[in-house]
Amino acid sequence: MRYPNGKKYVANKEEVSSKKEHRTLLSAANRGMSLEEDINLSNEYYRDNQIALIHKRPTPINIVKVDYSKGARITDAYFEKQSTTDYNGVYKGKYIDFEAKNTKSNSAFPLSNISEHQIVHLKNVLYHGGIAFFIISFQMKDEIYLLDASFVIDFYEHGSRKSIPYEVFKKEGVLIRQDYSPRLHYIEAVDALYFK
Amino acid sequence: MRYPNGKKYVANKEEVSSKKEHRTLLSAANRGMSLEEDINLSNEYYRDNQIALIHKRPTPINIVKVDYSKGARITDAYFEKQSTTDYNGVYKGKYIDFEAKNTKSNSAFPLSNISEHQIVHLKNVLYHGGIAFFIISFQMKDEIYLLDASFVIDFYEHGSRKSIPYEVFKKEGVLIRQDYSPRLHYIEAVDALYFK
Repeated sequence: MRYPNGKKYVANKEEVSSKKEHRTLLSAANRGMSLEEDINLSNEYYRDNQIALIHKRPTPINIVKVDYSKGARITDAYFEKQSTTDYNGVYKGKYIDFEAKNTKSNSAFPLSNISEHQIVHLKNVLYHGGIAFFIISFQMKDEIYLLDASFVIDFYEHGSRKSIPYEVFKKEGVLIRQDYSPRLHYIEAVDALYFK
Repeated sequence: MRYPNGKKYVANKEEVSSKKEHRTLLSAANRGMSLEEDINLSNEYYRDNQIALIHKRPTPINIVKVDYSKGARITDAYFEKQSTTDYNGVYKGKYIDFEAKNTKSNSAFPLSNISEHQIVHLKNVLYHGGIAFFIISFQMKDEIYLLDASFVIDFYEHGSRKSIPYEVFKKEGVLIRQDYSPRLHYIEAVDALYFK
């Protein structure tokens, strides 16, 4: 945990000898890293640098049995379905809420792993004036897009196919710049879409 | 889970024969109810009636062992300290973040059960333009106050005693109206303090 003004060491641009070398280091560093880890690290960067305050919601767990003889050790529990999204927080006073997903498809993002509860939740966020979006990683293309939740809601409810074509991301979404620190400059994309 | 426009049955004012009788029913119904349960029920009411979208954050749990033979049953895990607050969400487009605590004291709210992590978190919320407060229940008085987080931060960092006198709540806080549904009209207090 860092204090509001405690800044973490961040590599200066000049310290990175060339963009190409930087890229190569990046790809190596990213190997095996998940989208979730990238977002968590980016959120840490945004928090440490006082840019935005976004946290991952803990996974809801239903606790069945706790052994107090071992200092409150949970001995039986199970995972509950997340009825909201994975991330929320505050940026420039506004409420921010989003879900992040990977896809191995090159042509479309399948909606099968978005739950109806999440759609309802995101509709509510928009209704209350919050900012709601998806961060979708097209892994094979190494492209990550930010797309406003309204498109996802619309395709979920009215789309003939249960997926969102890649072209919709190209046209309506914002390509997120990948880097070393933060891994994902997704706040740049938020600025471009919501704070123009 | 209810849909954005799906309203839940809420007792009409006329259906409650008298304020006094209402109060009596209330006290009986409240017996054994905790502040947390009251807030959770109020949040459900606010969600169902499209007034605000506030959720309790799940308790963070560190999972040590999962038995997949039993369908992902957690067999060893322990509680982690909450580094943020218990509640957050969106109201009128603004980010809302708060912590709720009980006290049996009549004279002051002791700061001993507020962690430094929570103070740091709330400072960050204020820095980013969010709304941050505490809901403090003086159980013996049956009075629940909403107090802006800045007072708590100030007493935590500069107070000579590690507590906030009851008078501060009386003077600077807003008394939350207790009712049947919602249990706590804390959004009224939010309106009075932040949306005048």
